[in-house]
This record gives sequence, C-alpha cells and structure tokens, in this order.
Amino acid sequence: MRMVTQEIAQYVASQNPGCLTADVRHEAGRALLNFFGCAIGASRHATIEAALAAVKPFAGAAQSPVFGRRDRLDALNAAMVNGTSSHVFDFDDTLLSCSLHPSGPVAAAQLALLGHRPASGADFVLAFVLGVEVEARIAEAIHARHFPAGWHTTGTVGVIGAAVACGRMLGLDAARLVNAIAIASTQASGIRAAFGSMCKPFHVGHAAQSGLTAALMAERGFTGSPQALQGPRGFAEVLGLGSSLDAVPDQLGNGFALMSNSSKPYACGLVLHPVIDGCIAVREASRFLPSQVERVDIQVDPSVLDLTGKEDPRTGLEGKFSVYHAAAVALLRGDGNEDEFSDAIVRDSTVASLRKRVVPVASPEIAKDAAVVRVTLKDGTVHAHTVFHATGSIDFPMSDAQIVRKFRKLSGSALSEAAMDRLALKCCSLETLPQAGALNDDAMADL
Amino acid sequence: MRMVTQEIAQYVASQNPGCLTADVRHEAGRALLNFFGCAIGASRHATIEAALAAVKPFAGAAQSPVFGRRDRLDALNAAMVNGTSSHVFDFDDTLLSCSLHPSGPVAAAQLALLGHRPASGADFVLAFVLGVEVEARIAEAIHARHFPAGWHTTGTVGVIGAAVACGRMLGLDAARLVNAIAIASTQASGIRAAFGSMCKPFHVGHAAQSGLTAALMAERGFTGSPQALQGPRGFAEVLGLGSSLDAVPDQLGNGFALMSNSSKPYACGLVLHPVIDGCIAVREASRFLPSQVERVDIQVDPSVLDLTGKEDPRTGLEGKFSVYHAAAVALLRGDGNEDEFSDAIVRDSTVASLRKRVVPVASPEIAKDAAVVRVTLKDGTVHAHTVFHATGSIDFPMSDAQIVRKFRKLSGSALSEAAMDRLALKCCSLETLPQAGALNDDAMADL
Repeated sequence: MRMVTQEIAQYVASQNPGCLTADVRHEAGRALLNFFGCAIGASRHATIEAALAAVKPFAGAAQSPVFGRRDRLDALNAAMVNGTSSHVFDFDDTLLSCSLHPSGPVAAAQLALLGHRPASGADFVLAFVLGVEVEARIAEAIHARHFPAGWHTTGTVGVIGAAVACGRMLGLDAARLVNAIAIASTQASGIRAAFGSMCKPFHVGHAAQSGLTAALMAERGFTGSPQALQGPRGFAEVLGLGSSLDAVPDQLGNGFALMSNSSKPYACGLVLHPVIDGCIAVREASRFLPSQVERVDIQVDPSVLDLTGKEDPRTGLEGKFSVYHAAAVALLRGDGNEDEFSDAIVRDSTVASLRKRVVPVASPEIAKDAAVVRVTLKDGTVHAHTVFHATGSIDFPMSDAQIVRKFRKLSGSALSEAAMDRLALKCCSLETLPQAGALNDDAMADL
Repeated sequence: MRMVTQEIAQYVASQNPGCLTADVRHEAGRALLNFFGCAIGASRHATIEAALAAVKPFAGAAQSPVFGRRDRLDALNAAMVNGTSSHVFDFDDTLLSCSLHPSGPVAAAQLALLGHRPASGADFVLAFVLGVEVEARIAEAIHARHFPAGWHTTGTVGVIGAAVACGRMLGLDAARLVNAIAIASTQASGIRAAFGSMCKPFHVGHAAQSGLTAALMAERGFTGSPQALQGPRGFAEVLGLGSSLDAVPDQLGNGFALMSNSSKPYACGLVLHPVIDGCIAVREASRFLPSQVERVDIQVDPSVLDLTGKEDPRTGLEGKFSVYHAAAVALLRGDGNEDEFSDAIVRDSTVASLRKRVVPVASPEIAKDAAVVRVTLKDGTVHAHTVFHATGSIDFPMSDAQIVRKFRKLSGSALSEAAMDRLALKCCSLETLPQAGALNDDAMADL
C-alpha cells in the first residue's frame, strides 16, 4: 500500500507559485469570481439568515466578512457561512468527472483565513489550485462507490481540500500537512438525504470550517493518523467503500483538475441548459411578441423529461424542475438566472401562458448537452435553433464575459458597480495582489 | 417505513422532569461526575493544549469554561475542547451494548450551552438523560454493521445525542427537533483510523460542537431532511449500512439506556480490569515488600494476552497494553489510574523489576471479567485472590464511593478540595439546582 497521505503532503509542501502557468491562474480567477457571485447572491437567503443568527452570539473577533453583507465574523464562523452561501443556489462550479463543486469549501476556508493570517495573491492562488487538485483527485478516485452509497462529495472531500489549501497558506511542512489531512478526513460528513433542505449547502460551509480547523490544529501540533486516507478503517476504506487512492499521488499536477472545471450559466440543473441556450438564441435572432407564439417545439435528451417534466410549477424551486418553464422564461426574458426561477416569475401570467404552448419531445438521437428549439408563430413563421454543446459544458465553457456577467447579476443587489469592478479585476490578476485580503474588502456589501 | 425522526422528536419534546425516577437521576449524576473527572484530569494534556491554542484566536465571548483550567471560550468552542478532554484518557463511561461513550458528547455540549442559555438542574438532567437515550438506542440499532465498517460510534452518534439534549434545553418543539436531528446526522463523522492519535478524543469534541450547532441552527429555522435518519440515503442507510431504526421509537424511555452505563475504575482497556482488581485485593490483604516477591501468577481470559501481551513497555501508552505492567503497578501502588500509566512509572526500576516476575497464563475457563492472582513470596508464603466480576462490569458496577474517588484523583491537580466537594455534591442532587450553570463555576481550575 502506498503512503498516499504522505505523498500528497510532500507534493503540496514542495510546490511554489512558479508551478502555475498563466492558464491555470486564469481558471482559478474565473472559479473565484464565480464563487463570489454565488455567495454574494445568496447572502440574504433564508438559509444564510438562519445560519448567521445561530452562530453570531458565539462569534469571535471580526476577522473576516460575510460576503454580500456588512457582517464580520471570526474566521472559523465566516468560513462556515460563506461556504454555505456559495452553494445555496446550486449555481456554483462543477467537476463533472466526480459531481464535485470544487471551489466552495476551498475558497470559503482560504478567504476566511486571510482575516487571521494575511497572504499574497500568488500564495493564495497556489494554495487554491493545490486544494482543489487534492480534493478533486480523491473525489475522482472514490466517486464510483462513494456517491451511489449516499455521500455528498462536496461535503466529504471538500473538507480535505479546505485543509490542504489552508495548511499550505499556513506554511505547514509535510509532516503537519499529513496531520491536517488526517484531522480533516475524520471530520468528513454530508449525506444525500439532506438534498432539498438547507443542509445541502451547509455541507459546504461545514466542510470549509472543519477543514480550516484541521489546518489550524495541525499547525499547533495536533496529530492524526498517518494512514488516515488509505489505511485500515481510513477514509477510502470507510467512506470510499474500499476504493483505492493509489493512483492519486501520480495524478497531482499532471494537468490540474481545475482545467476541467465547468460553470453553470443558468440557475437550474445542467439538464435544462441546452434548452435555455436554444431559446435565448431564438429570442436574440427574432423579435416576436409572446402573444404571437403558436407553439414551441423542443427536442431533448430523454433524461430531460424524466428529471424536469413538471408541466405546471407553482414555486421557483418547482420551476427548476420544469422544462416547460425553463423554455418559456428563456424565450421571454433571455436568461435562466436565479431571478427567472423566483416564485414571482413562475407565477407570472404571461410566463404561465407561454409554458402551456411548450411541447417537449424526447429524442434518443439528441446528446445530453444538445437541443433543438423551434418556435412557430401564429402566422406560420418558424424561428429555430440547434444547440450543439450547451454553454458551460466541457466542450463549450462559459466565456470570461459570461462569467463576469453572471457574477454581476448575482452581486448587483449588494455591491456597487465600483466594488464589482474592483473584485472582478482582482480575480483577473490574483498573482499580482500584494495582499489577497483585498478580495475580502471588495466582497462586502456597500449598497 | 416508520417516521423515526418525527417519533423521536415527539418523544423528546413531550417529556417532563417528572418522568425521571430517583435512580435515573442518580445514575445521571454519577455519569456527570465521572465526565468531569475525565475532562479535568486531561485538561493539561498536549491534546488539549494544541486544540485550545488552535481555536483561541477565533473564540467569542467568554461564556463557558474549559474544565480544569482558567480559560473561558464561547459555548461552541468550549463544547469542542471539553468534549475532547473527556475522552483523552479513554477513561470515560461506556455502554457495552454498543461501544458507546455516552456522556462525553452530550454533557460537553449541554454544559457549554449553559453559558449562553441558563437552565435549572431539573431541566438539565432531563435533557441529559434524553440525549443519552436517543444516542444509545440509535447506536444499538446500527452497531453490528456500523462499528465493523470502521466508524467510531461516539463521534457519529454522539452528535445526534448532543443535538437532542441541547434542542431539549432550548425548548425546541417537535418540528424543530426534527431539524436539529437532521442537521446533526448529516454532520456525523469519525473513522477508526484515527484511533491512536489525538483525533480519537477530538471525535467527541467535534460531535459536541456540531450537535450544539445543529440545535442552535434549528432554533433559528434552519431546515434538514424530515427523513434524515431513516430515509433513502439517510443516516441509517449510509452510516448504518442499511440498518433499521424501526425499533428505536418503542425503546425510548422503556428502561433508560443510562441504567446500563458502566464506568472504568482504571485508565486502561477493560480487559485488564480483573487483573488490577485482583492485585489490589492481594495488596490490601497483605503487607509484603516488592523485594520479597518471588513470582506473581495470574490466570486470565485468553484475550488478555492477545490484547495486552507487551512484556517490556517503554512508555505510559505501551503500559496500557501490558498485563505485566498492570499487575506489577497495581501490586505496588494499589491503583490503575492515569498516574500508574505515566511514562515515569512505566520506566521506574522497582516497577520494571516486579514486571519481570509476573507470569500470566491464559485459561479458557476464566470469564472475561474474572481473574485469579497468586503472589508467592521468597519464603514460600502465598497471597491469592479470585475476582468474580471486575469492578465496573455490568454485574459489579463501581460504587458511588469509587466514582467519587476516581473523580478526586483525576481532578486534584486542578481543583481545590472545596471545589471538588462542591462539584461532587451538585452532581448528587442535580435536580435541586436552581441554576445548572453552577456546575461550570466549580469545574474551573482554582489551584
């Protein structure tokens, strides 16, 4: 058996900022900006109000901001709240290889730590890439058994990613990084029964807080098992149901996992994204009024109707499970952001009326990330579009402009234009920041 | 499928202090005093120094004490540190039916909460009994699959017990208790790879903190799955590997689990306890000097040599795995407390010399909780004793006097005689305390 924990720790401790090429730093900046948008956008959600109210009476020094708000908490509590808000909308980034939302637990922990232990932008981005790398490679190794067994990977593996990134920021040597990974992996938690409740995003916050705690404890000499990941009754055996991590050490840094990251342009399941892309394209190419539409035919992969076949949604959440709603609202508003899945929009009479004219057909020839949209007007005119690869899929990632636009839509109610500009610019050039903590200042509410 | 989470919550919400008979309250007081002794005794251990140093820069208002010290932390961090210290010596109570250390996670969380939300002694003891009851019945239901799979039950189920007890102290209604249990169960963690490292006791502290957090979040309206325990991909399916909890609701309160609690008189594995009992009895019945001893014959269950066969231990920890050391030190010092398993005593030349004269023999006729000890002096005199049931076994529980003596041995370096008296007396009459928080005041170091 390989000493996987030690090899990972050795790898993490021995890297330096020069190991990151410009394209990796660029992808890190995009991931971070997307993280900020998701966290800021959800910062007034009932989930965050409740979590914040619960921990505030216990919070320590005002070290780290709650993104999108004026509150400050100690770093441990800030990591929890910001990690949670990053996943409230289920709108954060995804590694499709292992259903992992990689940035949330790592970034929330690292950014919170900055309020206690400053770091340069270059050190910060290196730690972020390494945290995601370890987290992702472990997630990929255990995914086939772990996820079907009922585990929420972003919670269970996220805590390890957070510990690695924070341990790196704290400058831990390899021996202490082994302890940090061990302390993290024995806190791994998050079961899929929680999906559909506030606990799903809380998994991310809990992972961020527990991973940061693990790194801080390891720094002070707290010990864990040297075989925490791969040994008997270790993480891979217990939570990975006997998965092997032997391949992980050789994968680290051989093409960073972050380079396969994907971001969602729309605030709903990936399965609906090709339909929304197609409807937006039709809308942009023509100028019809809703009243002119006779019918909207869409061809989709069969899974779309299985997963999102709700014909008459009544709430925003139900709207996310309705291909009828997604098509109608994209044709009417040209987007599929959180606003398009609000209760008010779902109940809007124009939207509801158009929904009734949407006719989806499952077609086995259509790929999962493809769709055909055909709008027939009452005068017989037809406007159609074919989506080859949905925006945000591996073959067609979101452009920088789309990432920035999504960030601005999510952040606009809490951050001024100037603050959004500053934060986006800093994410573009993380490695030049003398103090990464400047990110935190710009991510607080100033409206 | 029964709605187990709801039935548990309904049971917990509907009890009142009158449901506890005097013997249950008495057993709760013994458990609590034993908890205090273990936590105070370990309060200067390297494990606690490291954990405390790690979280102190983030701690909030000085709400709750670190037992056995002068430090105060916010309730969430205090729950973590005190839960951890209660298990550092592996000297805390045990429910033998499910290898659960029931008091640590529950008591650490509840006592910490008192610093934020005062409660009467009667409410406190009821919440404690109910927290242990739910925790124990769930642990018993999943034990056969859960523990062999590599889980540390006191961590994984302890978080639920802590949430139930704290939820009850907060006066949550059944609906919010369901959420508290759900938020707790999705934080359940602790793998057995951690055994032998500081992470093992940390499991208890993490469970206490996470369970308290769950109750506080539920109070503020945070939601979890209504099927968190028994539903698809819920706690029993994922961590219990498909165990059924259907029997749990009918067990609650039908003879409290706490009444089967056992406490260790000696700071080592239960397997050595009959030997130590026998050696102490021989020592008390005779007055020989170490130099007079020719040989010490002991007959033990075969598992004793398998588990504790180390002939020449070099450290205190190794001493806990040496029947030779346990017999020698009990004959010489009349005890098997943490002091008897210190590095210094293990390396003492008189102890080491007597160890060489100990001759254990495995005998299949000897029960696990029995032993025969026969000391032969150089002049041919024989002093012998037969232990039927070791002290602390189910058939021969520690007496109140022994519990108090153990508490005083563990606490004496941190607490004055007067403070120890006060704390022991309060544990004897919990239900009469107007403010349970008075326990916390007496458990702080005053030496």
